Amino acid sequence: MRITVITIFPEFFDSFRTTSIIKRAIEGHRVDFETVDFRSFTLDKHRHVDDTPYGGGQGMVLSCQPIIDALRSVRDERSHVVMMTPQGATFSQKKAARLATYEHLILLCGHYEGFDERIRAYVDEEISIGDYVLTGGEPAALVVCDALIRLLDGVILEDSHEDDSFSDGLLEYPQYTKPAVFEGKAVPEVLLSGHHANIRRWRLKESLRKTKQRRPDLLQHRVLSKEEEALLEEIAQEESTQSEEL
Amino acid sequence: MRITVITIFPEFFDSFRTTSIIKRAIEGHRVDFETVDFRSFTLDKHRHVDDTPYGGGQGMVLSCQPIIDALRSVRDERSHVVMMTPQGATFSQKKAARLATYEHLILLCGHYEGFDERIRAYVDEEISIGDYVLTGGEPAALVVCDALIRLLDGVILEDSHEDDSFSDGLLEYPQYTKPAVFEGKAVPEVLLSGHHANIRRWRLKESLRKTKQRRPDLLQHRVLSKEEEALLEEIAQEESTQSEEL
Repeated sequence: MRITVITIFPEFFDSFRTTSIIKRAIEGHRVDFETVDFRSFTLDKHRHVDDTPYGGGQGMVLSCQPIIDALRSVRDERSHVVMMTPQGATFSQKKAARLATYEHLILLCGHYEGFDERIRAYVDEEISIGDYVLTGGEPAALVVCDALIRLLDGVILEDSHEDDSFSDGLLEYPQYTKPAVFEGKAVPEVLLSGHHANIRRWRLKESLRKTKQRRPDLLQHRVLSKEEEALLEEIAQEESTQSEEL
Repeated sequence: MRITVITIFPEFFDSFRTTSIIKRAIEGHRVDFETVDFRSFTLDKHRHVDDTPYGGGQGMVLSCQPIIDALRSVRDERSHVVMMTPQGATFSQKKAARLATYEHLILLCGHYEGFDERIRAYVDEEISIGDYVLTGGEPAALVVCDALIRLLDGVILEDSHEDDSFSDGLLEYPQYTKPAVFEGKAVPEVLLSGHHANIRRWRLKESLRKTKQRRPDLLQHRVLSKEEEALLEEIAQEESTQSEEL
C-alpha cells in the first residue's frame, strides 16, 4: 500500500515515520509512506497558499490552485482521496479496515479556517476523527495512518487483532500480569486457576460488564449470543443486589 | 499550563513539539511540554516494562511498577492524570476545554494488549479519542495535546475560536477565497454582494444544511432559535421541491 499525505507541514510526520511499529512497517516495505508539500505548488509570487474569505470574517481560507495541482501531481486511477475535515464522516474501525484495502490512499490536510469549498469536488470522501477542533489536519491524518497501517498484512501479529477493542464490538476485558499482588491489589482468582473454560467465561462477562457501564451504545445494536444474554442477566442481578445492599 | 506525557516512545513527540502552532506555544511559554520514559523506571534487570497475561492469551500486558513509579515522580496535588485507552470516555471539544483548565495534566500512554487493570486505580480519568484501534496511546495523546494547547490563552487569535466547528454545535458554513471562478466553479453571489445581513443569514443556513445532511445527531439535542427554525423549514421545503423534480 502507498500513502501520500498532502500538507504544508511535512516535517510533522518525521517522528511518526521513524518510531516503533510504523518505522518497521515502512522498512519492511509493508507501506510506502510519503508527504507532499502543497506550498511548493503555489503560483503565488509570495508563496502564499491561502487568502481572505469572500463575504468577510476572521482567518484565512486555503486556495484551490496549490492543493489541486499538488493532488494532480500524485493522483492516478488507483488513488482514493480523503480530505481531513471536522465536517467529515466520523472515523471508525470499520472505516480503517476499508481504507486499508486501497492501493493508494491520499490524505489531504487543511489549516486555518479551512479549505475553499470548491476543493470538495475533487476528493472522494471527507473524514473527521472526532468531535473536537485541532490546529490542522495533520494530527488527524497521523491517527488515520496509524490505525490502518497496523491492519496491513505482516505489520503486527495476526492473532493480536482478535483481542482488539471494537473489532468484536465490545470493550476489552481486564488484563493482569505479574505480580499476583501489587500494593495490596490482587489478581482475580479465576485467572490463576488454569481452568480455561472458566477464564473464557469470566473474560466475556467482564467485557460485557465494562461495555454496559461505559459504552452502552455499543450494546444497543449488538446481536447477542445466548451466552451473552445469560451473562448480561447475571450482571443485572448482581447490580440490583448491590444497590439493595446500599 | 504544564503537560507531561508518560510513554516508552518519547521520540514520537519530537516533531509535534517543533512544528507550527505547538512550537510557538512552547517557545512563548504558553505551555510547558515534557515527556517521561517509564522504561527508565523499571526495576526489571532486562529493562522489561511488560509481561505475559494471567489466564493466558496473546500479547503482553504493561506491568504496574514502572508506570506507577514514573507517575509518582511527576505527580503532585495539582496534577490531573488521564490514561489514554480505547475503553475510556470519548474525547470531545467540551472535554478539551475542561482539560485545558488544569494546572498540570499527565497523559499516560499504553501499548501492546494494554495496562494491568490495577493501574486504573491510580488515574483520575480514562479517555479515548474515538472508536478505532491505534498502535499505542501516543497518537491519541498527541491529538488531546493539540486540541487543548490551541485553546490556551494567546496561542491562536481569540476571535478564531468563535468560528470553530463544534464550538457552537454546528458544522462550519462553506468558505471561499479568490479567484471568484476556479475551473468553472463560481463563488455564491451573496458572498460577493457586500450585504452583511444577507451573508450572515446565508452562512447560518448553509451551516444548518450541512449539519442536517452530515451530522443530524448534532441537531437533535440543540435548542433552536426562531431564526434557525425558520431556516430549517426553508431547507426542508427546498429538499422536498428537489425530490419532486427528480
